[in-house]
Amino acid sequence: MQTSPFLGELIGTIVLLLLGNGVVANVVLRQTKGHSAGWIVITAGWAFAVTFGVFVAKAFGSVDAHLNPAVTVAFAIATNDYSHVVPYVTAQLIGAFLGAVLVWLQYLPHWAATPDPDEKLACFATAPAIRSTGPNLVSEALATLVLILGLAGISSKNLGELAIGVGPYLVGILVWSIGLSLGGQTGYAINPVRDLGPRLAHAVLPVDKKGSSDWEYAWVPIVGPLIGAALGGVLIRWFAL
Amino acid sequence: MQTSPFLGELIGTIVLLLLGNGVVANVVLRQTKGHSAGWIVITAGWAFAVTFGVFVAKAFGSVDAHLNPAVTVAFAIATNDYSHVVPYVTAQLIGAFLGAVLVWLQYLPHWAATPDPDEKLACFATAPAIRSTGPNLVSEALATLVLILGLAGISSKNLGELAIGVGPYLVGILVWSIGLSLGGQTGYAINPVRDLGPRLAHAVLPVDKKGSSDWEYAWVPIVGPLIGAALGGVLIRWFAL
Amino acid sequence: MQTSPFLGELIGTIVLLLLGNGVVANVVLRQTKGHSAGWIVITAGWAFAVTFGVFVAKAFGSVDAHLNPAVTVAFAIATNDYSHVVPYVTAQLIGAFLGAVLVWLQYLPHWAATPDPDEKLACFATAPAIRSTGPNLVSEALATLVLILGLAGISSKNLGELAIGVGPYLVGILVWSIGLSLGGQTGYAINPVRDLGPRLAHAVLPVDKKGSSDWEYAWVPIVGPLIGAALGGVLIRWFAL
Amino acid sequence: MQTSPFLGELIGTIVLLLLGNGVVANVVLRQTKGHSAGWIVITAGWAFAVTFGVFVAKAFGSVDAHLNPAVTVAFAIATNDYSHVVPYVTAQLIGAFLGAVLVWLQYLPHWAATPDPDEKLACFATAPAIRSTGPNLVSEALATLVLILGLAGISSKNLGELAIGVGPYLVGILVWSIGLSLGGQTGYAINPVRDLGPRLAHAVLPVDKKGSSDWEYAWVPIVGPLIGAALGGVLIRWFAL
Repeated sequence: MQTSPFLGELIGTIVLLLLGNGVVANVVLRQTKGHSAGWIVITAGWAFAVTFGVFVAKAFGSVDAHLNPAVTVAFAIATNDYSHVVPYVTAQLIGAFLGAVLVWLQYLPHWAATPDPDEKLACFATAPAIRSTGPNLVSEALATLVLILGLAGISSKNLGELAIGVGPYLVGILVWSIGLSLGGQTGYAINPVRDLGPRLAHAVLPVDKKGSSDWEYAWVPIVGPLIGAALGGVLIRWFAL
Repeated sequence: MQTSPFLGELIGTIVLLLLGNGVVANVVLRQTKGHSAGWIVITAGWAFAVTFGVFVAKAFGSVDAHLNPAVTVAFAIATNDYSHVVPYVTAQLIGAFLGAVLVWLQYLPHWAATPDPDEKLACFATAPAIRSTGPNLVSEALATLVLILGLAGISSKNLGELAIGVGPYLVGILVWSIGLSLGGQTGYAINPVRDLGPRLAHAVLPVDKKGSSDWEYAWVPIVGPLIGAALGGVLIRWFAL
Repeated sequence: MQTSPFLGELIGTIVLLLLGNGVVANVVLRQTKGHSAGWIVITAGWAFAVTFGVFVAKAFGSVDAHLNPAVTVAFAIATNDYSHVVPYVTAQLIGAFLGAVLVWLQYLPHWAATPDPDEKLACFATAPAIRSTGPNLVSEALATLVLILGLAGISSKNLGELAIGVGPYLVGILVWSIGLSLGGQTGYAINPVRDLGPRLAHAVLPVDKKGSSDWEYAWVPIVGPLIGAALGGVLIRWFAL
Repeated sequence: MQTSPFLGELIGTIVLLLLGNGVVANVVLRQTKGHSAGWIVITAGWAFAVTFGVFVAKAFGSVDAHLNPAVTVAFAIATNDYSHVVPYVTAQLIGAFLGAVLVWLQYLPHWAATPDPDEKLACFATAPAIRSTGPNLVSEALATLVLILGLAGISSKNLGELAIGVGPYLVGILVWSIGLSLGGQTGYAINPVRDLGPRLAHAVLPVDKKGSSDWEYAWVPIVGPLIGAALGGVLIRWFAL
C-alpha cells in the first residue's frame, strides 16, 4: 500500500486525538490510574500527543503534518496556495472523529464508573471555564495566533537547520506552552477538528449515561482558531517569515 | 570482554526495569522521599527509564535496543526477519527479572514499612484499575500499537537524519506520552517482559509480608501487547514505513 | 514589510510576556482550568514562554533574541559594544507592556471572578515572598548572574555546534532551572522589563477592582537583575567565554 | 584571565550546588514561592542544575565537566589515567562548599522563617528516609552505578555523534531519572562532594537556629557513590564502552 499526504493527515490526527483526549479521560474519568492528576498531566499529555501525531503523520506520508485546519489555513494564506485545504481538512476531521472513538474504547470500563455527564463530554470536546462568547472567541483566536507564530519560528529560515531536525518535539513543546499559559479560559481547542470531530463522536457513540453534546458552543472552537490562523497567515506572508 | 546484542538487551532491560519499577516503588512504598508523588512522577520515571535503558543497551552492543518483545516481534514482522526473536526475548526476560530484583534491593527498608501487599505487588507487576479482561486486553493492544507506530515515526525514512540522533530521548518521550494518555486503565505494561519478569521476581523473592503474585492476570499484559505489536508490524510492512 | 532586530525584540517580548504572565494568570486567577496547579506549572510555563519568545524573535529578525535588558547589557559589557542597548531595551519595554495587555485580554472573564487584588497584581508584576530589600536585591542579582553564565555556557565556543541548534529550547530549560531553584524568594524577575512593562500595564488597564501597583518595590527587579548582568558580562569578557 | 579545567570544575560545581540545593531550599523552607511543591520539582530542579553546571563548566574550560568525584574516579578507572583525580576533586569540593554558601544567601530571609532544624539541614546535605547503613550504602552505590553506565551510554562510541551535541541536557535528564526512580531511600547524593561540601558549609555558616550537621551519616554518601563508581569504571573498561 501507499503512503500519502491524505493518509498521513488521517492517521496522524487519529494518533493526536487518541493521545490528546486520552490524557483528559485518564485525568477526568473515575477510578483511572491518573484520576485528578492535574493540569501538568493534561498539558504534557496534549503536548506529546502533538509530537507523536506529527511523527506518525510524517511516517505515513504527510510532509506537512498539520493535523489541524487552523495550521492548514494559516500556511495556505501565507503561501497563497489553497490546494491542500480541502483534502487535508477532510482527512483531519475523519481522523479526529476516529481518534475520539478509540479513546472511548481505550477507557471502556470507566465511562459507567463516572457519574457526571459533563466530565464525560470533557473527554471529547472543550468547554469554557466561564461561558462568555466574546472573550471565549478572543482567547481561542489569540492562542491559535501564538501557535501559528511559534510554528513559523520553529521552521523559520532565520534559524539554523538544526532546530528543524527535532521539529516534532518542539511543536509538542509549543502546544505544552500554549496549554500551560493560554488554555485556562477555554481549554485551548486551537484546532477546529480537535473539537468538532470528538463532539460528533460523543453525539453518536453509545457512551454510558451521556448528556448533551453542547452544540451551542461548538462554533466557538471552530471560528476562534480560524480567526487566529488567518491573522497568523497574514503576518507570515507580510513579513516573509 | 565483548559487547554483543544479547548483552545489550540484557543490561539495557535491567536498567529499564530498575529505573521503571524504581519510580513505582518510590511513589507507592511508604516513608520514601517520593511517596504519593503522583502520576506525573510515575510516567516521567518510566519515560526516562526507557531513554537510559536504550542508551545503555546501545553502549553494550545492541544497535536495536528493543528491551521489549513487543518491539522485537513488531519489527520481525515488519522486516520478515525472525532471527533475533529468540535471543532478544531471552535476554529481555532475564534482564527484566534481574532489574526487579535490584528494585527490591534499592528500596530494601521500605517493604516492611508498607502494610498493603497489593501496593508491594504494584512495584513489580501491573494490575488493571477495573478488572475486565476484554477491555484490559484492548487497552494494552491499542497502547502498544501506538508505541510501535511512534517508533516507526521516530525512525522513519520520511524524516531527516537529525531526529534520529536524539532517538533514545524521543523514545522515552513516546513512552511518557503513552503513560500519560493511555495508561489509565491497565498501567501500560506495553511490554510482556516488563510484567512477567518482575512478577516472577515477586514470586521468588523474600519480600516482607507479600501477598499473591496475581497469576490470573499475568497473560493479559503478555497477549495484549503482542496483539498490538503484530498489528503495528503489519502496518509498517504494508506501508513500508 | 520588513523584519528587523527591533521588530524581533518587540514581537518576541510580546510573546514572552503573553505566555509568561499567561501561566501566572492561569494558576492564580479563580475559576480557570489551571487554578492552583502549582510551582511546576508556573515554572514550566515561563520556561516555554522564553523558548517561543526566542523562536519568534528570531523569525521576526532579531538574531540575538535577548528579550531582556539584563541580557542586552551583559553582552554589551562582554563585547564592549553598546550600540544595541537603547533600541533593544526600547523594543523590549514596549513588548512587555503589550504582552501584559494581551494577558489581561486572554483571561478577561477571570479578573472579576478573583477577589484578592494582590493575586491580580501577581499576574502582572513580581512581589517578594518576604519583603526585605537587601536579600531581595541579592536574590535577583544572583539568579540573573546564573542566567548570564548559563547563556554563555549554551553558546560557548568551548561547546560543539550541535548544542546551539536547539538553543531556544535550552534557554527555556535554563529559565526553568532558575525558576525551580532560585525563584522562591522574589519570583525571579531576572529581567527588568518583565516586571516594569506589566506593572505599567497594571497601572493603566481597567482591571476589575484592582489594587495598588506596588511601585515601592518596582526598582528592585530592575536594579537587581542589572547588577547580576553587569557581573556576568564582566566574567564573560575577562574569561573570553 | 584564563579558563582551565580546574576553573571549569570549580565554577561548574558552584552552579550545580546553587541550583541543586536551591530547589531543595525553595521546596523545604517556609514562606517560599515553591514551598511543598513536591518530588517532581525537587528532581527537575536537580536535573537542570546538572545540565547547567555542565554547560558552565565547559564554558570555563573543563571539557570533561565531571562536577562529581564519583564520575572522575569512574573514568579514571575506565581509562587507567588518574592524573586528573586530585585537581578535579579539589575543585569540586571547594565549588560544592561555595555553592552551598550561595544557597544560604539566595534564601536568606527564609531560614529564620523555618522552625525545624532538620529541614534546614536538608537544604545542605542528604539524609536517608529510613536510617539503615547497609541498605543506605547499597542504594547510593547502585544509583551511582546507573549514573556511570548512563553517562557511558550517552557518550558511547556505539552511538552517533548527534546524541553528544545535546549531551549536557541528556546528562541532566539522566539525573532526573535517577532522582525519580532511585532517590527515594537516601535522597540520591550519588556525588561525594554534593553532600560533603554543603555539610561543611552547614557546619560553619551562621544559619539561623541550626541543629546538628549529622556527621555520623556523612561517610555513607561518600563511600556509597565511590563503590558504585568503581564498579561502573571497571565495567566501562572491561567492555571498552
